[in-house]
Amino acid sequence: MIEVSVPLGKRAYSILIERGLLSHPHTWLASYYYQEWVVVTDENVAPLYLDAFVNHLTGKRVVTIVLPSGEQAKNIDHWLMVLNKMLQAKISRSGCLVALGGGVVGDLAGFAAACYHRGIDFIQIPTTLLAMVDSSVGGKTAVNHSLGKNMIGAFYQPKNVIIDLNVLSTLPSREYAAGLAEVVKYGLIWDEHFFELLEQKATMIQERCLDVLGRVIARCCEIKGEVVALDETDSNIRAILNFGHTFAHGIEVATNYQRYLHGEAVAIGMCMALELGVILEELPVSLLERTRHWLTTMSLPTSLDDDIDPQAVWNAMQWDKKKTSKGLRFVLLARLGKALVRDDVNVEIAKSVIY
Amino acid sequence: MIEVSVPLGKRAYSILIERGLLSHPHTWLASYYYQEWVVVTDENVAPLYLDAFVNHLTGKRVVTIVLPSGEQAKNIDHWLMVLNKMLQAKISRSGCLVALGGGVVGDLAGFAAACYHRGIDFIQIPTTLLAMVDSSVGGKTAVNHSLGKNMIGAFYQPKNVIIDLNVLSTLPSREYAAGLAEVVKYGLIWDEHFFELLEQKATMIQERCLDVLGRVIARCCEIKGEVVALDETDSNIRAILNFGHTFAHGIEVATNYQRYLHGEAVAIGMCMALELGVILEELPVSLLERTRHWLTTMSLPTSLDDDIDPQAVWNAMQWDKKKTSKGLRFVLLARLGKALVRDDVNVEIAKSVIY
Repeated sequence: MIEVSVPLGKRAYSILIERGLLSHPHTWLASYYYQEWVVVTDENVAPLYLDAFVNHLTGKRVVTIVLPSGEQAKNIDHWLMVLNKMLQAKISRSGCLVALGGGVVGDLAGFAAACYHRGIDFIQIPTTLLAMVDSSVGGKTAVNHSLGKNMIGAFYQPKNVIIDLNVLSTLPSREYAAGLAEVVKYGLIWDEHFFELLEQKATMIQERCLDVLGRVIARCCEIKGEVVALDETDSNIRAILNFGHTFAHGIEVATNYQRYLHGEAVAIGMCMALELGVILEELPVSLLERTRHWLTTMSLPTSLDDDIDPQAVWNAMQWDKKKTSKGLRFVLLARLGKALVRDDVNVEIAKSVIY
Repeated sequence: MIEVSVPLGKRAYSILIERGLLSHPHTWLASYYYQEWVVVTDENVAPLYLDAFVNHLTGKRVVTIVLPSGEQAKNIDHWLMVLNKMLQAKISRSGCLVALGGGVVGDLAGFAAACYHRGIDFIQIPTTLLAMVDSSVGGKTAVNHSLGKNMIGAFYQPKNVIIDLNVLSTLPSREYAAGLAEVVKYGLIWDEHFFELLEQKATMIQERCLDVLGRVIARCCEIKGEVVALDETDSNIRAILNFGHTFAHGIEVATNYQRYLHGEAVAIGMCMALELGVILEELPVSLLERTRHWLTTMSLPTSLDDDIDPQAVWNAMQWDKKKTSKGLRFVLLARLGKALVRDDVNVEIAKSVIY
């Protein structure tokens, strides 16, 4: 088993990575003494993993809540539904909530845990690659609002993140690829050796070799933990984790969240951000090409489909949570493995990489 | 000006206490550089103080939100209304929310600040005595749910608490007295000299002498800050701040929040808790009598009205956020100035002080 620590002082916790942690949870469940458990999952994950997990909670009081799947479910109404069910079941403050699913379940259930009785313990069990390397680590929880993504939420850290590598084998190809976009992001912004490793192991990653993936996921979690520990509430350096995301959010909004998965939009957004780096930071074009090649190998898009209006993307980018009074904030690369944040990017230059 | 520090590390902040801080806010406003301000208040407070305050925010973008007054307004719908208005006004993460009002406004607006874009800065300007000495200090924010009080919320600290003593002169008598119940609580649970001071200055307190009140409020805030610093998220010692509150919540629920103000219910609840201390902790009866005398001087109730069914109070107490798997948790006094928490109080003895 690989154990990655997220060093957050009183809120520190471990990420456990191994095959079979979900089907054979006694190894880690034994250390918990909660008498009340709330397991939140979605319609896709429930038939695959819910019963097997809940069967290990015999003798405890267990409430299960199954959400519709998909980003549309990540709203205030479902968040309230989770809280209502917990209140109706009279779950106390000393219970524990488990978020069993992808990013939507983790973000929504985590935000419910953050607010129920002003916060109860929760455990993330991410079942998508994207959630394993990104949303389950670092304590960002939220729901969407009709006026924007993740507009209502909290910083709230889990007690543990449990990553069962076996679940990756049931993940649909498109979802798997979408997670890889966030994986390569860590190499680009933080660790050039990791980027090179991803290039070397491209075939094994593409074929979902679980041994390689265990190490890859662990390194992503380590990097995310390091960055989050430097800036838990996203005041400064944590912004680099949003590499490619300002563009990606614009792409997602302009296509009404229908066309691309989040990771796919991030893949395109990272290519745009790299191009901006080539223009503004003397980043070598070869890095843009290497990244495009890797993303293409993983069946990810690297540019906008022709029928998408770049102006719509640009307009959607203007209302971004990261926007400051100075203007849009862009994360660029100074070089491979080194990101920086700029508030002063010329509007025409920024637009040029979308068009 | 009196300044009380709440020592919470990275989340530390000051409570400023002085006459005129609201009508002449430049002294403290000058240190803030926010360009966007959201001022949340209620229908009672708005006509008295809103315009005068907002007039000092010239040149800034200001959104004002006026809630209905009263505990019934402290619900999810109004919380969502605040968030919606902020989103519609495109308030960014670098804005500031001001909670201008009593406990309801502070709790609800504080919870909105906690969740808007995962948390924006906020300032408490309490306009009731209860909010000054209790709800505005310590970072507890929440809204009520039909299944219970404060069931959905967050621990979220303000950047400052601004206490203008002048507002106490417009406070209705019943509200003023209700705040005094929480004031005497601090003497009972933490500081016998403070309790004695309250006895000595009873007449001046009753007559709202602002000089005495400044010192009294400062000491309450100091004590609350000390206790909160020991236990920010209410895991252990912070429970002593709930002295009298387990009974009070039962009284409030059993009377549908219609009969008593919160502080009035706390006054009755403290007398019940003191009586339980006399039975279980050899607390002198004289302390119960002194407390009853002080509360009566301040026009506060010290026992249930005859037409209230004690059984209804007891039943309502059973579903309490502080309940553990062991049973109801009671805060008792070991002696004047020294509180303790007990999970093992015999049910029949506990009931005896209600009947």
